Amino acid sequence: MNEASRPSQSPATEKAAVGVWSPALTPFDDDLNPDATRFLSHARWLLDNGCHGLAVFGTTSEATSLTAQERKQLLEVLLADGVDPARLMVGTGCCAFPDSVDLTRHALANGCNKVLMLPPFYYKGVSDQGLIDSYSRIIEQVGDANLRIFFYHFPALSGVPITAGVIETLAAAYPGIIAGLKDSGGDADHTADLIGRFPDLAIFPGAETNLHAMLELGGAGCITASANVNASAIRALWESWQAQDGEAEQRQEHVRAIRKTIETEAMVPALKAVAAHYRDDDAWARVRPPLVSLAPDAATGLVAKLANNGFEFPDGADR
Amino acid sequence: MNEASRPSQSPATEKAAVGVWSPALTPFDDDLNPDATRFLSHARWLLDNGCHGLAVFGTTSEATSLTAQERKQLLEVLLADGVDPARLMVGTGCCAFPDSVDLTRHALANGCNKVLMLPPFYYKGVSDQGLIDSYSRIIEQVGDANLRIFFYHFPALSGVPITAGVIETLAAAYPGIIAGLKDSGGDADHTADLIGRFPDLAIFPGAETNLHAMLELGGAGCITASANVNASAIRALWESWQAQDGEAEQRQEHVRAIRKTIETEAMVPALKAVAAHYRDDDAWARVRPPLVSLAPDAATGLVAKLANNGFEFPDGADR
Repeated sequence: MNEASRPSQSPATEKAAVGVWSPALTPFDDDLNPDATRFLSHARWLLDNGCHGLAVFGTTSEATSLTAQERKQLLEVLLADGVDPARLMVGTGCCAFPDSVDLTRHALANGCNKVLMLPPFYYKGVSDQGLIDSYSRIIEQVGDANLRIFFYHFPALSGVPITAGVIETLAAAYPGIIAGLKDSGGDADHTADLIGRFPDLAIFPGAETNLHAMLELGGAGCITASANVNASAIRALWESWQAQDGEAEQRQEHVRAIRKTIETEAMVPALKAVAAHYRDDDAWARVRPPLVSLAPDAATGLVAKLANNGFEFPDGADR
Repeated sequence: MNEASRPSQSPATEKAAVGVWSPALTPFDDDLNPDATRFLSHARWLLDNGCHGLAVFGTTSEATSLTAQERKQLLEVLLADGVDPARLMVGTGCCAFPDSVDLTRHALANGCNKVLMLPPFYYKGVSDQGLIDSYSRIIEQVGDANLRIFFYHFPALSGVPITAGVIETLAAAYPGIIAGLKDSGGDADHTADLIGRFPDLAIFPGAETNLHAMLELGGAGCITASANVNASAIRALWESWQAQDGEAEQRQEHVRAIRKTIETEAMVPALKAVAAHYRDDDAWARVRPPLVSLAPDAATGLVAKLANNGFEFPDGADR
């Protein structure tokens, strides 16, 4: 792509967030309590090995399986260790709006102004007005102009799509505060449509599967589960695209193949199995119910398939 | 149905709960905080006008839109006023198991041993093992043999069906503690199947639509949203069935027609609109987002349709 045809917002420095972001896995101890030591170590390792930032408390983090208090404590562990709040996007969307207000205020009070916000996800078939009311009420009650909300569109799990109409209404009502969206819908056409409709927002595909194409269209980057184990390679794709070094498409094919391999198993248990294998640390394989850890055979098989596809676990510090 | 053919468990006195139960609506003040005064008044009125008991904090209660603290406070309001804990079934199922443990312990500590428990409802496509792990962990951590769990099967909203396999495994592992199920699946054949498979459990259809038939099969009664406004008529059906006075089927047709009329609008806003109309109290119409109150025209139309179908708002004390 030549300079003339590159989207004007690239490299999108005016967007509230860009680049390769990982919804960080949440490790658990043998009582299935959050393991703050491993969590911090993993977060540091991700930031040192390819991630521009971390979306803490997303789907891959088993966020909905954590209490509000557990989320707050884990966030505080990162910040107390000196993690830059600008490199964090905090998951704060709950079913009950006072809980979303509480978590969002906590993030802001700790210097984190970027939040990734699920819609309330119990009731289904809710109207656009219902979602507009939900987000508006949270924004009004939080009452902080520094807030930057990234909508979390994941209809296969939330059951509640965030429509273009909802985005448009809220972006007009709260310019600046409505900052972007993670599109985990898995439909590249939908992501491309949002990028086109909302050029001022940071639209992140929820996977690296079509990252190169989405960047070319003006996408902000990606917020992707598989970055938990493959951030370096995904970052290399990003850097090739930035440098226009001609290697981006080849790197795209590689990370897509790795992603597709991981997707042959349930995503969160699969990522934890890979982390457990490469760190030689079985504790990493633990998940909270209702998720179930991969059976040993499945974990071994996944690791073998990844190796066959040229996967290399990033070998940086603090892993 | 003659005596010889009646199910042996009828009138099912050995079950942990039977009869007509209402998932009580939660009223809100003008800041959308729970309105404890109206809540208590409504609960008393329901118990005085047809309900054997109340399933507080179900779907109709907008329970997932309430914080844990709000649920605890509302429950304490009922108990402080002397409501019999035996007539309460407390919704305690959350996405994060420590939250479910906390709410269940709170209910037990306050004398309420019956809980209606949603599965964790964010992740979809979870395995039976994942649900078995979820409920087992809660039961083990609560650690109280008096606990009586009623599964809350509402796949259209939770997205997570509670299969017969899950019920069977848990009922065998925790006999007595696994006490029953509310089937809000809307499929009478499925309810009938569960009644047949699990004769020792209290299986409640989630509506009165086919209550008579389900009672004949051995169902425990019903836990039904529409009892919030039509408990007297539903109770009359129950009593006719108990008395075998020959009027049960006629009463069934009446309450079914009322239910179908209410179902022409979104259930929770519809019930609140009806309550607001008959109590001449607009405050009753408030819902928390993502639900949206009925438009005035829709509310007026619903009330008119109900009147045309012979609906009468129970006119007892404490309304």
